[in-house]
Amino acid sequence: MIGRLTPEQSYALLRGSRVAHLGVVSGGDPYVVPVNYVFDGEYVYFHSLPGKKVEAVRAHPRVCVQVDDVQGDYSWRSVIAFGRCEEVRGDSERAHALGLLLSLFPHLTPVESLMAADAASPAPLAFRVRVERVTGMYEG
Amino acid sequence: MIGRLTPEQSYALLRGSRVAHLGVVSGGDPYVVPVNYVFDGEYVYFHSLPGKKVEAVRAHPRVCVQVDDVQGDYSWRSVIAFGRCEEVRGDSERAHALGLLLSLFPHLTPVESLMAADAASPAPLAFRVRVERVTGMYEG
Repeated sequence: MIGRLTPEQSYALLRGSRVAHLGVVSGGDPYVVPVNYVFDGEYVYFHSLPGKKVEAVRAHPRVCVQVDDVQGDYSWRSVIAFGRCEEVRGDSERAHALGLLLSLFPHLTPVESLMAADAASPAPLAFRVRVERVTGMYEG
Repeated sequence: MIGRLTPEQSYALLRGSRVAHLGVVSGGDPYVVPVNYVFDGEYVYFHSLPGKKVEAVRAHPRVCVQVDDVQGDYSWRSVIAFGRCEEVRGDSERAHALGLLLSLFPHLTPVESLMAADAASPAPLAFRVRVERVTGMYEG
């Protein structure tokens, strides 16, 4: 059977996963990329190198963050969180965001890890999405 | 290291997977849902019950279909296919689309499977996306 997850179940899945599918609007059309992320109960944090994803969220900050746990074709849970994406710019907020991400993903990507370790290099970009609404579905 | 998949590698991943993340624009904002799908080399086929996803693709047919194979935080492949989504309406084309889907997903969803087996019931909706462009990335 297919049904709705409760808000508690939806937030639990969002809190307990590590890979999300970030949905953005790029040039008016949809664009989806997997991101490693951390959810602290209020914000979804992710990092990125400059590129299409970063240009898209700057131009159209409304995004969605989709997370699923697929056990099989007829056994899965999926949540979608909606919110506004913003770059994390302040020093202490950036340290908080990157600290959370590094605690789960100690290498980030090789390039970004290298940059984070070298204060003279350009810093990796950190983003956060304040989660305004979550919906969840399941089958099984 | 992170790099680009070749077109052949990208198409192979698209052809070999069963679950995609369909990215659509809904009310101007991004919306992402997992779908079971089949790719026949030209079209991505999926089915759906009426709802937000169907309303979104009817209002904004440009979609993306993202598929990944995540082995770990630093070992993954991901492809995004871009195209225009259309409902499959002709009898023979619908039979082809639903036949392909049923060959991989014999139950579709319980409700849709029931409807497909009963000619007197409303038929499940079938959609296809002609794949115009595919890009792929990998890490590992």
